[in-house]
Amino acid sequence: MSITLQDCRTRDAQDPLRALRDHFALPPGVIYLDGNSLGVAPKAAAARVADVVTREWGTDLIKSWNTASWFDLPQRLGNQLAPLIGAGKDEVVCTDSTSINLYKVLSAALNIAREDSPARKRIVSERSNFPTDLYIAEGLCKERGLELVLVEPEEIAASLTSDVAVLMLTHVNYRTGAMHDMAAITAAAHAQGILCVWDLAHSAGAVPVDLNGAGADFSIGCGYKYLNGGPGAPAFVWVHPRHANRPDLKFMQPLSGWWGHAAPFAFTPDYQPAPGITRYLCGTQPIISLSALQCGLDVFTAAQSLGGMAALRAKSLALTDLFIQLVEERCAGHGHGLGLATPREHAQRGSQVCLTRDEGAGVNGQGSGAYAIVQALIARGVIGDFRKGDGGTGRHKDILRFGFTPLYLGFEDVWNAVEHLRQVLESGEWQKAEFNQTHAVT
Amino acid sequence: MSITLQDCRTRDAQDPLRALRDHFALPPGVIYLDGNSLGVAPKAAAARVADVVTREWGTDLIKSWNTASWFDLPQRLGNQLAPLIGAGKDEVVCTDSTSINLYKVLSAALNIAREDSPARKRIVSERSNFPTDLYIAEGLCKERGLELVLVEPEEIAASLTSDVAVLMLTHVNYRTGAMHDMAAITAAAHAQGILCVWDLAHSAGAVPVDLNGAGADFSIGCGYKYLNGGPGAPAFVWVHPRHANRPDLKFMQPLSGWWGHAAPFAFTPDYQPAPGITRYLCGTQPIISLSALQCGLDVFTAAQSLGGMAALRAKSLALTDLFIQLVEERCAGHGHGLGLATPREHAQRGSQVCLTRDEGAGVNGQGSGAYAIVQALIARGVIGDFRKGDGGTGRHKDILRFGFTPLYLGFEDVWNAVEHLRQVLESGEWQKAEFNQTHAVT
Repeated sequence: MSITLQDCRTRDAQDPLRALRDHFALPPGVIYLDGNSLGVAPKAAAARVADVVTREWGTDLIKSWNTASWFDLPQRLGNQLAPLIGAGKDEVVCTDSTSINLYKVLSAALNIAREDSPARKRIVSERSNFPTDLYIAEGLCKERGLELVLVEPEEIAASLTSDVAVLMLTHVNYRTGAMHDMAAITAAAHAQGILCVWDLAHSAGAVPVDLNGAGADFSIGCGYKYLNGGPGAPAFVWVHPRHANRPDLKFMQPLSGWWGHAAPFAFTPDYQPAPGITRYLCGTQPIISLSALQCGLDVFTAAQSLGGMAALRAKSLALTDLFIQLVEERCAGHGHGLGLATPREHAQRGSQVCLTRDEGAGVNGQGSGAYAIVQALIARGVIGDFRKGDGGTGRHKDILRFGFTPLYLGFEDVWNAVEHLRQVLESGEWQKAEFNQTHAVT
Repeated sequence: MSITLQDCRTRDAQDPLRALRDHFALPPGVIYLDGNSLGVAPKAAAARVADVVTREWGTDLIKSWNTASWFDLPQRLGNQLAPLIGAGKDEVVCTDSTSINLYKVLSAALNIAREDSPARKRIVSERSNFPTDLYIAEGLCKERGLELVLVEPEEIAASLTSDVAVLMLTHVNYRTGAMHDMAAITAAAHAQGILCVWDLAHSAGAVPVDLNGAGADFSIGCGYKYLNGGPGAPAFVWVHPRHANRPDLKFMQPLSGWWGHAAPFAFTPDYQPAPGITRYLCGTQPIISLSALQCGLDVFTAAQSLGGMAALRAKSLALTDLFIQLVEERCAGHGHGLGLATPREHAQRGSQVCLTRDEGAGVNGQGSGAYAIVQALIARGVIGDFRKGDGGTGRHKDILRFGFTPLYLGFEDVWNAVEHLRQVLESGEWQKAEFNQTHAVT
């Protein structure tokens, strides 16, 4: 039997996480399915940021390093975030950008791996990994005379050979929403003496993660997607204590700035790393943006009493299952050329659903029309995004990408989003010129 | 004839820059002489930040990358800052932290210098350079098998030998306020084939700087000191166009993230640097903090019609001259053990005055008492800071450090600050136990 709008409303009424939506300043008239790109603002953020600007900065000025505990902020936020990713106390700091943090941990992984085995000269990653991760790895390989090997997901296991130093993967793929089995892959890599770096950009706050349980080596992730920390919010970095606490590797990570120093106010001319994860800090952090990130984390703290990440994961899967089912019931079978890029298996799915669109399904048989469909949806207030494929030359079709944040989305939202998609497709409004004018999208 | 309070008031009344003070939210009851550590909040910052949080993030969400021009923000702020440091259009970006930016430009300078002359294996810097700069340089030297050579200021000329790749200096010394002759030192370095990296942390917005006029190679600086960009505001980076536009050096700077890519939304797996200074961007920036920085820069834009940096410099020198003169007239000669660390010559002075304090002048002949004097001043609302010396073992005495920001300080403020210092010294209130309990200061 087909799902009805009333079914969706009933599920919302029965949703134990429903109250979490009230923590967010959702813009009116919008169904926001882009929380995997930029999360929605928590209502608390405006007052928190105003307090930082007017009181902490404006009135207390330099004293706030102590009185407002600016100096501990990266560690405090790291400790608040730690339970979401299976990290322990004092194992995480929030700082810098995801790309910068990747440079730190990838450098550290190479330093450790190659100290033990100088013959290991490769970094392995996925060809469809998030590009900035590949750019950072490419730069490091060039600098150190190493080789970056890019493989397809099904080739990872065979690529774990004795000349590999580091396996660098993003846990949930940004294009498809496909999720790796972190524990299994980490174990397979370790069996070959390879260190693992995990990018949690599309995982932290979206799916349960257990870094310590998986025995991972290094991890980084993003503050402004599912963690709702604000545009360009500082990122995070986790290092397993077996690596972080190595005093023998003074420059384990090369961005050796004052905030990672053992005695930052001694002003000594030589660098001595702080113990533990603090050595992954570098320069002075953007306190206003960093403070806003706390408001995003506070919602997860509030969610603890409602079942935490396990409950959020259950709702996320229910939302993405519903979206897939409704699209197939209501939008497929009309020659619209839609397909599903995201795995149906729960264990392989993140918190997003990516629809593909066939080449030749665009206006006058040109392109896929996926970009125009996304633009037509945005004009109706349904915010998703578009990721370009390879134009039919390889394995990647154009993608319509929809992120589902269980903190603030409900089942009726899913119904309405699919209803808009159905209307956009059946009315043919996506074929209008205004929606087909491609320009830079983010 | 001695200066009087009335003289100071007269000078304030005649000060053509007086109106700029109204741009700042000065806390009541405070004379703030620590703008070289954290600048005062511009009044516009609260509303600007609120708009970013509630409208750009809260309402427009992901669209703001285009509609609020987030994507151009590092370049727009860089162009606004450029005239303050003698940089041209599209030569500066505001991004990341000072330490991170130093890593970028120092890496680039080494890559360029050593491509031409692999035998150059040294970085020369000052032993009393800001420590985080030395930490970054130490890490890079370790990573690349190079040598960091630290010298005293008077030894710089003799240190410029044919095995030196890069000379890395901070233009205005953070401890003493002593300023280098950028043009002369750069010319001397270039005559030996050495590239120059200038840290403008205590110069930008404080003294006129002419990077292009001096023919400098690379420069970085801080957004939260004299530029009043907010706590931990993103920093800036400038690269001379002769270096920035070198397509042959794909990884000229190693932090090769998506925002520095030539086509950041093409999502190609290989890195291709953007032309010009944009390649010095890396990951996503903290938009809220970056937006606040604009409010600091806007005050300098407003100052343009009042004479700009030349007028600000004239006032800065008048303020620091006055402070030196008043301290010598009113606080010296009583056995207080005060001295002057900052050069009297205008051409060698930044925008701060550092007083020294003799070892043995503290309570019961222990230490210098400088820390306690600074604490007693802070208790009276006169905010300066303390920098520890070497305890009499070398050339550095304990320092009482006072920054003078001509944008928001007046001549009566200087009078009142010195009067508080005189009372603190003559009353002996600095000897109270509460002021002598040392703890972490920033």
